[in-house]
Amino acid sequence: MEGPAKVTLVEVGPRDGLQNEKTPIALEHKLALIERLAACGLKVIEATAFVSPQWVPQMADHAEVMRALRGRRHPGVRHPVLVPNLKGLEAAFAAGVDEIAVFGAASETFSRKNINCGIAEALERFRPVVAQARAAGVRVRGYVSCVVGCPYEGPVAPEKVAEVAAALFEMGCEEISLGDTIGVGTPRQVIALLEAVAQRVPLERLAGHFHDTYGMAVANVYAAWRFGVATFDASVAGLGGCPYAKGASGNVATEELVYLFDGLGVETGVDLKALVETAWWVSGLLGREPASRVARALGGSCAVPQP
Amino acid sequence: MEGPAKVTLVEVGPRDGLQNEKTPIALEHKLALIERLAACGLKVIEATAFVSPQWVPQMADHAEVMRALRGRRHPGVRHPVLVPNLKGLEAAFAAGVDEIAVFGAASETFSRKNINCGIAEALERFRPVVAQARAAGVRVRGYVSCVVGCPYEGPVAPEKVAEVAAALFEMGCEEISLGDTIGVGTPRQVIALLEAVAQRVPLERLAGHFHDTYGMAVANVYAAWRFGVATFDASVAGLGGCPYAKGASGNVATEELVYLFDGLGVETGVDLKALVETAWWVSGLLGREPASRVARALGGSCAVPQP
Repeated sequence: MEGPAKVTLVEVGPRDGLQNEKTPIALEHKLALIERLAACGLKVIEATAFVSPQWVPQMADHAEVMRALRGRRHPGVRHPVLVPNLKGLEAAFAAGVDEIAVFGAASETFSRKNINCGIAEALERFRPVVAQARAAGVRVRGYVSCVVGCPYEGPVAPEKVAEVAAALFEMGCEEISLGDTIGVGTPRQVIALLEAVAQRVPLERLAGHFHDTYGMAVANVYAAWRFGVATFDASVAGLGGCPYAKGASGNVATEELVYLFDGLGVETGVDLKALVETAWWVSGLLGREPASRVARALGGSCAVPQP
Repeated sequence: MEGPAKVTLVEVGPRDGLQNEKTPIALEHKLALIERLAACGLKVIEATAFVSPQWVPQMADHAEVMRALRGRRHPGVRHPVLVPNLKGLEAAFAAGVDEIAVFGAASETFSRKNINCGIAEALERFRPVVAQARAAGVRVRGYVSCVVGCPYEGPVAPEKVAEVAAALFEMGCEEISLGDTIGVGTPRQVIALLEAVAQRVPLERLAGHFHDTYGMAVANVYAAWRFGVATFDASVAGLGGCPYAKGASGNVATEELVYLFDGLGVETGVDLKALVETAWWVSGLLGREPASRVARALGGSCAVPQP
């Protein structure tokens, strides 16, 4: 065994995935998706984002999603939701969330284009959000995007990422998710990144968030796992295209990571067969085949081979 | 640097790729493809197979391909061709080939279904082929298929692969390509495989041949490279579906490996931009987009990002 014996997969399909899909998904289907994912054994399922419907119309039903989920939660399943500011936090509180996520970037230009302010200002905006959430007993995740490269600035220095990650950790984020938003990294950059960040944030508080734009995500997850990272974000069926590269894929598919870790003998707690069925089901709602190679290889009703 | 500073990519698109494509490709296009691949910087381009046109109609023009190539070879570029038996070798000699490949399997059932005889009989059939080729100064590559799993038998023991690889090596194959034909392996199985095979065949004589059926190929190449393997087979645009899993992808795309090794700071000698243009061109001939994520992300006329 080269890395941790057990990993946590954070399913981001219902939020990060659907947010980047053009086809709108009805509330009942979102709820059914979350329900199915929980039944597959996923213990952390990002549910929605309390952002302005003007920015992200796909998440306009955030309050309804959370209210409906309250009545039918699987025991032990966490549902973080994205919160950009105090107004979002208030709405999230009103809807009864028990975990939130704030999102910063390691690239100045990306931060300005994505959330209309620079990195330092964004961090100051998150500080009271994190403080109030924690005071209310709500766990906080911190996302850092563009941890390897930025669509505007090119390569991003690991030290810059470490600085932003440390700031989020120090203000109270319990977990920092490092996102290769445009999927440009290979294991070499990922290892350099982790070497820098792990000096500021304990390794067990880090999550890897890889996009498969250039087909490197599984290799990057493998490299990060060998380094000691035990939490990875992924999206069922590889939901979510990449807005910065036309025709490119988005989040690494959860199926690929379950297949990888099953093969490595690492416990995920997720049933691959049920997950592949879910991938086909949700892709059907979007009118296409899953982006995931595992789902395509196994098909809709599958026998999982033993590697 | 964790693995070799320089790797050789063996381009198998014109043979292993096109052999598994349903759309027939005209001779002039095959030649143009090989020409383009050589211009990208690839130094080993598998050109065709001297097998019966009844078995593999896609390769029926093998003699024409080799004859045409003789007149326009790029200096320093090798063109191995598949040869199943002495009859094939004779035809290959007549067409002026200077490198051949023989192909065995590590699974008894796969061997019987694929070449109508068991492993031991296949090895005995190859023995005079390899001997005559070497006597004529022709280099010989040996393929071993099903090195991780078999579509009929399931998991394949590393020791069985080591036995077949050693037999091919000892009879005179200068390089042994280990093929995860159905793409079921993850880095754990690949490392176990290499540990077993490297006890019988020097590491520098091994090549990794990975299919991306379950999206594991890039991670497997990374793991094998870290182990010390410096030669990898790949197929431009990911040409070649997987006949054992409907809708699944075939060979790992050459673009993905060039992107990976560029990112790792490892020399391949291949121009990624030209390769992506070639991937789009050949996929156009087949009436579809490239299976490669790199090619899809970068598009037909691309600027390659720096990781």
